[in-house]
Amino acid sequence: MRQETILVLAEPHDPQLQRLAKKLADVKIVAGNSADTFAQQAANATVLCNWSGSLELFRKVFAMCLKLRWVHSRSAGLDQALFPELILSAVPLTNGSGVFSPSLGEFALGAILYFAKDFRRLIQNQMAQNWEPFDVTMAEGKTVGIVGYGDIGKAVAARARPLGMQVLALKRNAPERGETDPHAEQFFGPAQRIEMISRSDYIVVAAPLTAETRGMIGEAEFAAMKPTAVVINVGRGPVIGEKALVRALSERRIKGAALDVFDHEPLPAGHPFYSLENVLLSPHCADHTPDWLDNATDFFVEQFERYRKGEALWNVVDKKLGY
Amino acid sequence: MRQETILVLAEPHDPQLQRLAKKLADVKIVAGNSADTFAQQAANATVLCNWSGSLELFRKVFAMCLKLRWVHSRSAGLDQALFPELILSAVPLTNGSGVFSPSLGEFALGAILYFAKDFRRLIQNQMAQNWEPFDVTMAEGKTVGIVGYGDIGKAVAARARPLGMQVLALKRNAPERGETDPHAEQFFGPAQRIEMISRSDYIVVAAPLTAETRGMIGEAEFAAMKPTAVVINVGRGPVIGEKALVRALSERRIKGAALDVFDHEPLPAGHPFYSLENVLLSPHCADHTPDWLDNATDFFVEQFERYRKGEALWNVVDKKLGY
Repeated sequence: MRQETILVLAEPHDPQLQRLAKKLADVKIVAGNSADTFAQQAANATVLCNWSGSLELFRKVFAMCLKLRWVHSRSAGLDQALFPELILSAVPLTNGSGVFSPSLGEFALGAILYFAKDFRRLIQNQMAQNWEPFDVTMAEGKTVGIVGYGDIGKAVAARARPLGMQVLALKRNAPERGETDPHAEQFFGPAQRIEMISRSDYIVVAAPLTAETRGMIGEAEFAAMKPTAVVINVGRGPVIGEKALVRALSERRIKGAALDVFDHEPLPAGHPFYSLENVLLSPHCADHTPDWLDNATDFFVEQFERYRKGEALWNVVDKKLGY
Repeated sequence: MRQETILVLAEPHDPQLQRLAKKLADVKIVAGNSADTFAQQAANATVLCNWSGSLELFRKVFAMCLKLRWVHSRSAGLDQALFPELILSAVPLTNGSGVFSPSLGEFALGAILYFAKDFRRLIQNQMAQNWEPFDVTMAEGKTVGIVGYGDIGKAVAARARPLGMQVLALKRNAPERGETDPHAEQFFGPAQRIEMISRSDYIVVAAPLTAETRGMIGEAEFAAMKPTAVVINVGRGPVIGEKALVRALSERRIKGAALDVFDHEPLPAGHPFYSLENVLLSPHCADHTPDWLDNATDFFVEQFERYRKGEALWNVVDKKLGY
């Protein structure tokens, strides 16, 4: 069997390194958060895993490696994991897609019901000791349009459909002829997004950040939305034009937004999202279940076993497309 | 065809009376909120519908009727619709069960996700301009125990199961041998409620208020709950011992409660539920969708058509059991 050396870009005291070392006891693992750590081993390393390193470190260490056969990114989003040398190289890149989907599916469903039942109004009335019955809306019968129908988008659909919601799905490539989906009723290409958005009561953004998706939801898209529409972003902040979103929310041209991702994280103090009451603001922790790091480690270990046996890897990324 | 006269206990200007008159144009309908209104017609009335009358008025008008063949209550809960003469009479009583179930199913699911994702903490941090990522929990894999597995309970189960939750169900009568349920994994009788409650992460109370269910969830039941348990009441307030609930919440022996029903409504000013931050307080409007009154009227009209054709009525109540 080939001698494998795994480089892991991570904080030296990250407890997941122990989990990894225990699960892969027979493998040489070198971990650290500076390029110097890897000076001795990089030339012979076969696997590079970016657990929590910066894009800069990732790029630097990648350049030091001569025998890489596989690169893995813990994150599902690759906007911080792609650089020209990696894109051009023949080494396959995989990502953590799938690990985060159930939690983000639940967050999106929770956000739908939060707005349908107006939980914020309930809390405000409770704090004011104000007994004020009001009409709530139903999720049942409403339409959810999913921008980016990958693993996260499907996790949303699988949870919304049983509520009696209609699911519309936007994806880059139309499904193959005869390909069906158990949840989505109709598919749209990127060029048809205005049509899908204008029909949706809830617009869930779950697209990766690429040159093509950056700013994909902007002024024209907000103008096409129903005044009762709610936007939910569980993908990447910049897929939505932030200024256009702030305007639509401030002017109450849409009902609200539930946001787990932002252009700049942490969201700077004084940002309008903090004071807009029609925003449900989650500080990019909707996927932070108590076991998400364990799951991400275990996913890498399973991938490594597939790699070692020469089996096809999961989540091989199209590096040029960026997802 | 027999000449039918329907008495409707309702406010004289209730707009639903117009909807009813339009849908049943060929039927004599007498409506009002005082017994005098019905003095002329009661003796010959065949149908009595309690739309929004008090228990006192209901009882008084019932006593004036000599030829009743059917009594209907708009509400699903009958604790305000039962009195000895009605219980003892041979006239069938039906209720509005079913009309409210989808909205209450959605509220319960929303409440589960509200606590799993800690929406209140998100709102508090947002208001304080505090970016503080924290761990959220998953609904997936958790257990929901449903106390009262009727139409509302089933509506909760049908929405929780697709999230990957385990559903336990408590009902008065065990299911018939061979009877299966698409959502509930295990059934419990009232005597086994401690066992079911101790296994549940979410306890949804959807039981009618009867002599048997009053105070059914009290000190012993709260003592059996997990410290992370959340109680959700979409049935009737007094099924839960209110003092025991306030104590469990104040002492943080359970995680929280989502309450749509109370011992006294409106909830009196200064009540502890207003100030407990682990309570999601809904002023008995979780079923107030914009069309709930239309739906309740249409249900009565459909029932009336069945009645007139001599077909079996839906929702015939066991008046002695009280549901």
